[in-house]
Formats: sequence, C-alpha cells, structure tokens
Amino acid sequence: MTTTAGPAARQATLHAADLHHSLTEPVLESMTLLNEVSQRYPDAVSLAAGRPHEDLFDAADPERYLATFRRYLARERGYSPEAVRRTLFQYGRTKGIIHELVARMLALDEDIVADPESIVLTVGCQEAMVLALRALRADDRDVLLALAPTYVGLTGAAAMLDLPVAPVPSGGDGVDLAVLESEVRRLRARGSRVRACYVMPDFANPSGLSMDIAARRRLLEVASRLDLLLLEDNPYGLFHDGEHRPTLKSLDTERRVVYLGSFAKTALPGARVGYAVADTPVVGTGGSTHPLADELAKLKGMLTVNTSPVAQAVVGGHLVEHGCSLVAANAAQRRVYQRNLRRLLDGLAARFPEGGGVRWNRPSGGFFVVVDVPFAADDAALEESGREFGVLWVPMRHFYDHPDARCRLRLSCSAVGPDEIDTALDRFAAFVGSRS
Amino acid sequence: MTTTAGPAARQATLHAADLHHSLTEPVLESMTLLNEVSQRYPDAVSLAAGRPHEDLFDAADPERYLATFRRYLARERGYSPEAVRRTLFQYGRTKGIIHELVARMLALDEDIVADPESIVLTVGCQEAMVLALRALRADDRDVLLALAPTYVGLTGAAAMLDLPVAPVPSGGDGVDLAVLESEVRRLRARGSRVRACYVMPDFANPSGLSMDIAARRRLLEVASRLDLLLLEDNPYGLFHDGEHRPTLKSLDTERRVVYLGSFAKTALPGARVGYAVADTPVVGTGGSTHPLADELAKLKGMLTVNTSPVAQAVVGGHLVEHGCSLVAANAAQRRVYQRNLRRLLDGLAARFPEGGGVRWNRPSGGFFVVVDVPFAADDAALEESGREFGVLWVPMRHFYDHPDARCRLRLSCSAVGPDEIDTALDRFAAFVGSRS
Repeated sequence: MTTTAGPAARQATLHAADLHHSLTEPVLESMTLLNEVSQRYPDAVSLAAGRPHEDLFDAADPERYLATFRRYLARERGYSPEAVRRTLFQYGRTKGIIHELVARMLALDEDIVADPESIVLTVGCQEAMVLALRALRADDRDVLLALAPTYVGLTGAAAMLDLPVAPVPSGGDGVDLAVLESEVRRLRARGSRVRACYVMPDFANPSGLSMDIAARRRLLEVASRLDLLLLEDNPYGLFHDGEHRPTLKSLDTERRVVYLGSFAKTALPGARVGYAVADTPVVGTGGSTHPLADELAKLKGMLTVNTSPVAQAVVGGHLVEHGCSLVAANAAQRRVYQRNLRRLLDGLAARFPEGGGVRWNRPSGGFFVVVDVPFAADDAALEESGREFGVLWVPMRHFYDHPDARCRLRLSCSAVGPDEIDTALDRFAAFVGSRS
Repeated sequence: MTTTAGPAARQATLHAADLHHSLTEPVLESMTLLNEVSQRYPDAVSLAAGRPHEDLFDAADPERYLATFRRYLARERGYSPEAVRRTLFQYGRTKGIIHELVARMLALDEDIVADPESIVLTVGCQEAMVLALRALRADDRDVLLALAPTYVGLTGAAAMLDLPVAPVPSGGDGVDLAVLESEVRRLRARGSRVRACYVMPDFANPSGLSMDIAARRRLLEVASRLDLLLLEDNPYGLFHDGEHRPTLKSLDTERRVVYLGSFAKTALPGARVGYAVADTPVVGTGGSTHPLADELAKLKGMLTVNTSPVAQAVVGGHLVEHGCSLVAANAAQRRVYQRNLRRLLDGLAARFPEGGGVRWNRPSGGFFVVVDVPFAADDAALEESGREFGVLWVPMRHFYDHPDARCRLRLSCSAVGPDEIDTALDRFAAFVGSRS
C-alpha cells in the first residue's frame, strides 16, 4: 500500500497486484462476462443465461412459504411459539434447520439414504463447493480433478482457495475413465495428492452431457479402485425427459461421494440455499470417527456462521407444501424446460441442415446445448452477435482450455419462452450465416 | 485417504490430519465451546451467550418485512410486478439489492457518507470479514493486526485463510498506539506485509472497551502515518448510554477504513445479512482506479454468488419501516440492553465488595463486562460453574493468549432478563465464593 500525494489529497491506496491472485485470473473474467453481457445488450435475446424460469413464481410466495414453515414447526414438530420465534430470529444450528426435510426429500426423490446429521445447509451450492474444497485443500501438494469443460463456479471456488484444478475430458458417456485413471496415477507419481474429482453427471453445465447408469457404475468402480473421492453436483437432474437416472450418491456404497445440492433451480435462486451430503468418515487424531459434514460445519462457522434461517424457512415451506418432493414441486417446471429444450433442438435442426458445418449435441434434459460453428466463437464474436444480431450465447472457451473449445458455444433455453427461442434462433442463424 | 478393510466393508475414509489446518486450531475449540456450552447445561442461566434479545421480535415479522419491501420496490422505486418478482426470485446483483437503503441508513445514523457502489451486502458480517481478508491475503508475507482480546469470528476467518494474526494489546482508551506502531515497524523490518489492523471501537466483544473520540482520532493519525488500513467492526455501537460516538469511518478522510457492518443485533441474526463499506481505491494493472468493494464483489461471486435477496428484503423491509434509521428501529432494544447492563454492573457491585479480589470494568454500553477473579477462569472452572452452580460465562483465555487472561472471564447480559441476571449473579457469587 502506498499513498498518492501530500496531506491534502492523502488517500489510502491499494494495488490490484498486491491482492489475492484469484482476483486477476481468467475465471473471474468469465464469471463477469456471464453476469454482465445481458446488461450490455438489453435488447438482445439471451440464450446465454442459465437462470431458472421465473414465470411460475409469485413474488408473494416467500411470505406464504414462511407462514407454512412456521405452521410446520408448531404443528408437526411441536415447537412452542417461543421456539418458533427463536428458530427464525436467532443464530441457529451451524449445519442448518431444515436437514430433516432435506433428508426426506433425498429419500423420496433421489433414493439417497442420508443421515440428517451428514447434511450441511449452505449459502447456495456455491458455499457447499467452497466448504468441501477448503476442507480438502491442506497444502501445496493438493490437486482437484474436474470434468472439462467445467462449471465456472467450481473453477472460481478452487482459485479462491489456491487449489489447482486438473481437467479430465468429458467423453460421450460422461467421463473418459482411461484418462481419469492415468491422470490420477501421473499426479500421484509426481507427489500430488488428488483430493477429489468434481462431476456433474446429469445434463452438465456447460456441456449438457449426461452419464448413463452403466457409466455411473463404472465411474464409481474406478473411483473405488483409485481410492478417489467424488464431488457430485446435481442442479439439473430433475429436468429429464421421463428417465430419472440414479445419482452417483444413490449408487455409492462406500461413502465416497460428497453430494452437492442446489435449490436454485428447484425452488428459487433468491433464497441462496443449498446443501452438502457429506457422510465420508473422518478419522480424528484420537481415532474416533465422524462424518465429513462435521468438518464442513466447523468451516462454515468461520465462513458464514450459518445459513440464514429465514432463507432456509422459505425453502422449508416450499418442501412442506409439496410433501418434501421436489419432483412433485417441479412438475410444471420440468414441462417448461422440456418444451424449451425441444424447441431449441428442433429450431436448430430447422435452420441448420446436416453437413452444413454447424453441429450440436442433443441432451435429453437440462438447460444447455453445445453448438460447433465454422468460425472462432470468442468474446469478439459474442459482442458482434449481441450488437449486430441481437442474440447472446456463451463461448465455450470460458469453461476449458482446449482446441475443441475454439469454435464451440453454449446455448441455454431455461430463462426464455418458446417465441423468444424462435426469435433468438432466427438471429443466431443470421449471425452464423454472416460468418460462414 | 486410505480404505479400511476388504471389499464388503470397503469405505472411503479421510483423516483429520490431512484436512485444512484451521480445522484443528484452538479458535475452533473456542467457537465450539461458545456454541455448545449452553446445550450441555440447559438448566444453567447463561451469561455466556452474546446473542441478541428476542422478546421484541415477532415470528411473523419477516413476512411483514417482505411485504413492506415489495411495496417499497413497486411504489418508491417504480418496479413493475415482473421486476419485483425477479428481484426476490432470481440471482441478483453481486453487491446486493439494498445498498441504497444501507447508504441512507449510514448517512442518517452514523454520519457516514458512502457511495452505494462502495457497499457490498454480505452473508452476515462474518462473510464481510472473510472477503476483506481474502482480498488482502495474497502470499505468505501477509499479516493482520488485531486488537487483543479478539473476536473469535475474526480469528476464525483468518485461520481459514492462512492469514497470521499479530495481536496488539487493548489499552484503557482502546488501543496501545505505541505498541501498534512498534509492532508494525517490527513486522515490516522482518519482511512482513501488514495488510490491516482489525478494531472494534465501540463496546468491543469480548472486552467491552470503547475508544473515546480523541483516541479514535489518534488511531486514524497513526494509521495514516504508518499507511495502515483499518478494519472497523461495529455491531454494538447503537447500544450506548446516550453518547453515540462517531465511527472511525465517519472520521476517515483518507478512505483508510473498511467498515464491517452487521444487522444481527440491530435487525435479526436470522437474516444473516451484513455488509462492508469498502471505498479504498484500488489501482488496477492498467492504472485505472476502482473501489475495493469491486474486488470484494468478485470474491463474493466465487464464495456465495450473492447474499440471499429474500434475506436482504427482510432487512430492507425493516429499514423501510423505520425510515432507514436503525437508531429509530432500536429505541426499545437500546433501553433493554442499557437496563440489563446497569442491572449486571449494579449486581456485581452489590455482591462483590471493593478490595475483595473480584474486579470488573464498567462499559457504558454494549453487551459485555469483563471480570477478574482470584482463581484460574478456565474451561474446567466453567464446567464446574455450569454443573454445580447453574451459571455460565466465558473464559477470556479463548480470546487471547496473555497472562492477563488467566483469571479473567466475560459476562454477557444481552439475551437474558433482569430477574435472570439477578439469579445468575447470585449463583456466580456462590461459585466465586466456593473458589476463594
């Protein structure tokens, strides 16, 4: 820190170069771009945003959810009025106050049997990632594996915690297991500790890829053989075409999977409530064993103290109103996202003939489709697309450093309506045509 | 990570010794003790908890605050129904959505002129501390100064970010400036970068100490001379005896003070909403300048994405209902805390004659009084006090490593009523008598 001038103009001054390195890393530019590009081109139709659809939400819903949760505490849990008040008003249990409801939801919707004590409610799934990475990153030897292309939130969390991320390529059925295995062996041979591998097995952001059941079982087998922890992130799994695949966690017999849960797409992003299921046993220095969740809770105490009980109550009321089933709560949302995805895929097929140089994958669910175009899909192209053609998308190069990413982009269909998708694709076709 | 047994019993296993070092540091034991001691002795009266008083809160308040905030957005801000819905439902602005209300409150209550763009809403004041420390901790040379005894939340945040904390003793008027200055020079001489000094100038937790105006000005002068950033934490300043002292930030002409704000005591802990005012200019690599708040927001994007808009709306509604004045909103709370503090101080005087070996300080506000007793005030003594005498307090040794802490303890009067204070002090006197 240096100062600028004489007494009159004296000011404290910091220099960006003296601040934490994550503040100048490419992932931050990517996060900023994703957040801001829509504001720069407000008249453009955005197929960039992965935000959830908001038409099915009413602004008064949170008030009703809160009232529902208060009634639940009083009637189902037998809380006194003072205990209900304390629950909403005060600092609360570090691991959260809706862990039983979340455990019931996981059993109903995902066939995951989770001890409520192994669940930590977090400030969105982002904090769950940060807590898991903070617990696992002990020193400079530690490395995280992540399927590439990779969700920027994971890359950002790792950067903030000085944890290097080694990419593992996604394959047709999710993950290239041969590369995963050789990468683990290579890293271990050079003295690195591979602390975990991050995967999004269902309709991944940004690739749209999903693993079939056989691929999930193979991944678990390889993880077991390599003694590798898996971090499973599952924000989109409920938005399938009728085939609800089992999560890695539900297939996990070795407590090897830390499940990172989000309510952003299945309840509301505005609550900022997520959770981790962390039942991997931790052997303490005295030899006794406790779930990893206990360690995450300690870190959470130092990071955010606890997740807002008011925000948890909003999500808790939402769960209570739907019998603890997010499948039931999201029946209409699933229809909307499936309709949009079909519209997007059909619209691409209608505008880009086969063999014409534009190709794309065909996810059966989720929010994202990846498109290959015959030109560099970079930020300059995006700016031109927004400015001249009124349509926004995301260059895939923001999600991985690989030659494949050069001419590849991500389209998202979650936040728009069917007519906007048609308009956006007309404009996108015009933009692609101008470059071809 | 190793596994335990053959295929049948095969389990992933972690070892505590391989996890981040903060998980085994003493500060965590302290935080755990503070959180759990009341649960272990549920029949004891707790003068340990620094939680706010909840009698003035109604469990339906958050619902009303939300409705108030929705009306404010629609009527005062001219938001369309869709914009109101989006504001509560979606991911939002990383720096927060109630920054204008907070800026108005700071101007009204604290005489702090803050550009709303220099304010970052956070998940409680804890996240504000974490963001500031994460920005400032760039490498192993970095050190933080903190007034000792020190709030455990600060010590915990620093441990989680591998940032060493060098203690500076509190003096009678707040901080021993000679020691501060010599400590900064000593650290710099050995190659350390002193990134900031953390202070709580009003009714500090745990010491109860406050700085008078002259001491605040002297601290700012020394900080300017040393070119030292100050982190000002102010959760208790409004609970004074009639003399509302100016914050360091309101006296700061050099943008040298990062102000860490809390709504936990002035609104409700259950919202988990706090904020940082961070207007210190940061010179970017290209030479342009932006407020530190922009850097904190980038880190926040990687840590929690944003602070729950629903939780912010609860605090926003509370501010709107009281004309953006927390002074107005907390008139009754101030009376309760002042009544309790007088009851505690009078009760100590009635039970412990002068010269009898028990001494205490006499804060004019806040929640905390520090008592010196003629025996070791350690965890074993606390356990006996809880088990045998039914009264809880906190050993000061949890807040600093100093010989003074040996026979020193903290009493808190915030969460109890006057009769409980009397009962607690009767029991405390019996406990002290049993040891004298």
